[in-house]
Amino acid sequence: MANETGRIRVSVVGAKGRMGANVVKAVTDAADTELALTLDAGNDLTEISPDNTDVVVEFTVPSVSLSNVLTLISQGVDVVVGTTGWTDDKLDQVRAALANAPRADQAVFIAPNFAISAVLADYFAGLAAKYFESAEVVELHHPNKVDAPSGTAIHTAHTIADARRAAGLGPVPDATETDGGSRGQVVDGIHVHAVRLRGLNAHEEVLLGNPGEQLSIRSDCFDRGSFMPGVLLAVRKVSGHAGLTIGLDTFLDL
Amino acid sequence: MANETGRIRVSVVGAKGRMGANVVKAVTDAADTELALTLDAGNDLTEISPDNTDVVVEFTVPSVSLSNVLTLISQGVDVVVGTTGWTDDKLDQVRAALANAPRADQAVFIAPNFAISAVLADYFAGLAAKYFESAEVVELHHPNKVDAPSGTAIHTAHTIADARRAAGLGPVPDATETDGGSRGQVVDGIHVHAVRLRGLNAHEEVLLGNPGEQLSIRSDCFDRGSFMPGVLLAVRKVSGHAGLTIGLDTFLDL
Amino acid sequence: MANETGRIRVSVVGAKGRMGANVVKAVTDAADTELALTLDAGNDLTEISPDNTDVVVEFTVPSVSLSNVLTLISQGVDVVVGTTGWTDDKLDQVRAALANAPRADQAVFIAPNFAISAVLADYFAGLAAKYFESAEVVELHHPNKVDAPSGTAIHTAHTIADARRAAGLGPVPDATETDGGSRGQVVDGIHVHAVRLRGLNAHEEVLLGNPGEQLSIRSDCFDRGSFMPGVLLAVRKVSGHAGLTIGLDTFLDL
Amino acid sequence: MANETGRIRVSVVGAKGRMGANVVKAVTDAADTELALTLDAGNDLTEISPDNTDVVVEFTVPSVSLSNVLTLISQGVDVVVGTTGWTDDKLDQVRAALANAPRADQAVFIAPNFAISAVLADYFAGLAAKYFESAEVVELHHPNKVDAPSGTAIHTAHTIADARRAAGLGPVPDATETDGGSRGQVVDGIHVHAVRLRGLNAHEEVLLGNPGEQLSIRSDCFDRGSFMPGVLLAVRKVSGHAGLTIGLDTFLDL
Repeated sequence: MANETGRIRVSVVGAKGRMGANVVKAVTDAADTELALTLDAGNDLTEISPDNTDVVVEFTVPSVSLSNVLTLISQGVDVVVGTTGWTDDKLDQVRAALANAPRADQAVFIAPNFAISAVLADYFAGLAAKYFESAEVVELHHPNKVDAPSGTAIHTAHTIADARRAAGLGPVPDATETDGGSRGQVVDGIHVHAVRLRGLNAHEEVLLGNPGEQLSIRSDCFDRGSFMPGVLLAVRKVSGHAGLTIGLDTFLDL
Repeated sequence: MANETGRIRVSVVGAKGRMGANVVKAVTDAADTELALTLDAGNDLTEISPDNTDVVVEFTVPSVSLSNVLTLISQGVDVVVGTTGWTDDKLDQVRAALANAPRADQAVFIAPNFAISAVLADYFAGLAAKYFESAEVVELHHPNKVDAPSGTAIHTAHTIADARRAAGLGPVPDATETDGGSRGQVVDGIHVHAVRLRGLNAHEEVLLGNPGEQLSIRSDCFDRGSFMPGVLLAVRKVSGHAGLTIGLDTFLDL
Repeated sequence: MANETGRIRVSVVGAKGRMGANVVKAVTDAADTELALTLDAGNDLTEISPDNTDVVVEFTVPSVSLSNVLTLISQGVDVVVGTTGWTDDKLDQVRAALANAPRADQAVFIAPNFAISAVLADYFAGLAAKYFESAEVVELHHPNKVDAPSGTAIHTAHTIADARRAAGLGPVPDATETDGGSRGQVVDGIHVHAVRLRGLNAHEEVLLGNPGEQLSIRSDCFDRGSFMPGVLLAVRKVSGHAGLTIGLDTFLDL
Repeated sequence: MANETGRIRVSVVGAKGRMGANVVKAVTDAADTELALTLDAGNDLTEISPDNTDVVVEFTVPSVSLSNVLTLISQGVDVVVGTTGWTDDKLDQVRAALANAPRADQAVFIAPNFAISAVLADYFAGLAAKYFESAEVVELHHPNKVDAPSGTAIHTAHTIADARRAAGLGPVPDATETDGGSRGQVVDGIHVHAVRLRGLNAHEEVLLGNPGEQLSIRSDCFDRGSFMPGVLLAVRKVSGHAGLTIGLDTFLDL
C-alpha cells in the first residue's frame, strides 16, 4: 500500500477547505506519506485511481460526501472520511458499495472525531464508568457552534451509560428537587452540560465521583491541527482493514 | 469589645449542630477569641448578655433564626449569623430591632457564604466581567443537595450581569440553535450549570472568555472547615460595624 | 470464601489506626462483608484463623507489617495489605512464606494506593502516553507530607516512560535553556512537579500534549474514605488470586 | 487624540512581525481605530509624526526597541510598546527623553504582558494572597520556550510575596524533607512550577489554600490574538497618561 519510495500516496478531496488544507500540509510534512492529487468541487474524482493513489482523505460537506465516497470506492482506492452527517442509511450504502468493490480488501474508514485526546477521553470514560457512583459530562466550545450538546458529548454519555448498565449500576444519585434547567440535558441517564465561551475551540470533560474521590478526564482541542495526528493514523491503518470501519478507537492499539 | 485578656468572648447558638460544633472548636483554638456560652434548642438565650459575651455566632435553622437574632439584639450583644433563608421581610425586622437596640452601635452580620475562596471568586468575577465577551458559571456539589443551582452561583450570575450592564456590554455571544437543555439555566442573562457528583462538597467555577484567552476563577470548599476562617473574620470585625451588614466581602479589605 | 450468610468475614489488624478505623466501618457497612476480629498492637494475631476469618485487612506501620503478614500467612488466612514501605527483599520473604503456606491457594495482596481514581489515572496514563509528544506529572498534597514527589507520581512517571520506550518515542520536547529549578524533578525522563497546599489531601494530574491538543487525567482523593471502595474490592477479589499480587489494577476488570 | 472621523490613527512599527501583523489586523478591524503607517526594519521612523499618527504600537526586538522609542518620542507621538527586554537603565533613558519631549503631555506605555486574563490573574493573586496560608504558582507553556519559569510567573510570585509580607504572614507551610527537585523554584518564598507541553501556548495558574478550601485563578492564552484586546485598550488609554507607564493593570479600571 505504498509506492516504491515506501511512502503512502495520499490524495485529498476537499483540499481547499479548512480541514482539507490542513490535511494537505500534514500529508506533505509527514515522513511516511506523500501528497498525490488535490481535488475540490468541480474536479473529476475519476482522476483518482490506484495508479496514482493509495489512500484518499475526504473532508467535504454532508451533502456531497456519500456520492464522493461511492465514486472513490468504484475507483478502487481506500478512503478516510472526515466529513460528518452520516446516517445509518448512508452507511448501508457504503457497505453495499464495498461488497461490490473492484478490490476484495478495499477499505473505508469514517470517524466522527479525529482528535486522539477526544477519542481517548471517550474510551477511558467507558472503562472507568463502572467504578464510580456518579458521572457527568461537560463540553465547552466556541460560541459560534449551532448545536448543543456536541455529538462527541452525546457519544460519551452513551458510552458511560452502556458501561453502567453492563455493570448493573442504577441511576446516578441526584436529590435535586428544585431546578430551572441548571442540571443540563439528560442523555441516556447522564447529565450533559454545554458551555459556550469566546476563545475556546472544542473541549470535553468527564467527571466521575465516588465517596471521597473524583476522576476527571479532559480533552482540549485548541485548533484544527489537533485532528492531524488522527488523520495520519487513519491513513496509515485504513488499508489493512477491509470493509467499513467507524471510529478512531479501532485504530488505537488500546 | 474584648475582655481583660484582650480576647473576644464568643457564645455559640446552635453549638451542637454540625456547623456550630465547628465554630466551638474554631473559637476555642484561635488565639484572640475565647468560648463563652454554648446554647442549643431548649436553652434560654437570655443567659447571653454583655456580662459574659461580646459576640454571638448563630448557626441554627431558618425557622428559628429570626427569633433568635431578635432576642440576641434585645440582650445587647453583637451577632454573626450563618443560618440561611433570609428574606427581605426578615431582614427588615432585624433592621427595625437594631434601631431600637440597647446599644447605639449594636451590630448584626449575616452572610450567605463564609468561605473566603467563594466570596473572593464572586468578587473577582464582578471585577473581571466587563473585560470579557463571554461569561458562564459552573457550580459543582454533592448529590444530596436539593436545590440547583446553588444560591452562591445565582449570586455570582447577578454579579457578572450587573458588571456587564454597567460596562454597556450586550448579551453573551451564543449561536446555539438546537439544544435539549444542555446550555443550562439562564440567570440574568448568564448561563449557569449545576453538576452533582458523589465525593464533591461545594465548588464553583467562573469562566470568562475573549478571543484567544480564558480566565477561570474557581473556589473549592472541601469541607465545613472552609467556613471557619470566614466566621472568625466576621467575629473580629462585626463589632466595628453598627447596624445590619450583609456579605463577607464587606469585611475583606479588598 | 464466605460464611453461611454468604458474607466475607473480615478481620482488621490495626483497627484503631486512622485507616483501620475506616476499614472497620466500611466492612461493617457493606452488604457482602461482615466484621470478624479487630486487633491492634498488643493483640495476639494467632487468634485469627480460618475458623473466624476469610480475609484480613492489615493497615499498620512499615516496621511491623512484614512480621504481621508472615504470621497471618502461617495462620492460613488471605491478607489484604495497605501498609506501605515494601522493599523487594520484604516481598521475597512474603513469596517464600506463601510457598509454604497451610493452604495451596493462599493469597496476599499488597497495594501502594487503594484509591480507584488514582489507580485508573496511572493506568490510563500508560495507555495514552504513546500517542502524545509531551507528558508531565503534577501531584498536589497537603503541606504536612514529608516526601516529594509522592510515590504514586513516581510510579506514574515510570508508567509513562515505559510506554514511551515501548512505542519508540524519544525524549519529550523541551527547549529550556535557563531554569532555576522550576522544571521540576526528572523521573525516568518525565518531569514531575509537587505542589503543597493547605486544604488539599492527595491529588495527581497527568498532562499529555500533541500539536493542538491536550489530554488531562486527574485523580482527586479528598479524604481517607476514597480508599474504601478499593479496599473492599481487594477483599472481594483476593481469595481468587493465589500467591502474591501487587497493585489494585490487577483486580480492576480493565 | 483622534482625527476628524473620531478614530485614533495608529501606526505600527514591526508590522511584518508575528505580533505586529496581528496588531495591524486588530487596528483595522476595531471601530474606533484606523491604521496609519506600517513600518519595519529598513523603514524611516521619522515618517511618523502628529500629522499622520496619534499612537504608535511598537512590537520589534529588544536590540532595537529602545532606539525606536527614543526616535518616536522626538517625533512627538505617543507610543505603546510590546517589545520585551526592558532594564531599569533603558527605562531611565525613556523617562529622560520624555522630560524633553516635543509635547508636555507625551506618553509612553510599556507592558510585559498584554493578555487581560494574565494581567487580571496576577492582580487577583495579589488581592487574595493575604487571606490564604498557602500559595503556589504553576505556569504552562509550549516546549519551544527557552526560559523557565516565565517572566509573568516570576512577577506573580513577587506579587503574592509582597501581599503576604504586608499582611504579616510568615513562610508558606511545607514539611517536605525529601525532594529531588519536584518542589520547583522558590521565587521570593513562593514555589513556582513550569510545565512544558506540546499543544499549549501560555498559561498560568495561581493556587491558594486554606484549611478545607482552595482558590484557583487561571489564565489561558491560546494564541497571539489574546494580546489584541489589551493592545487596543492601551492604544485607547495611553494618550491620557503623560510620562512613562508600565503594566496594563494601570489601564484596567479595577
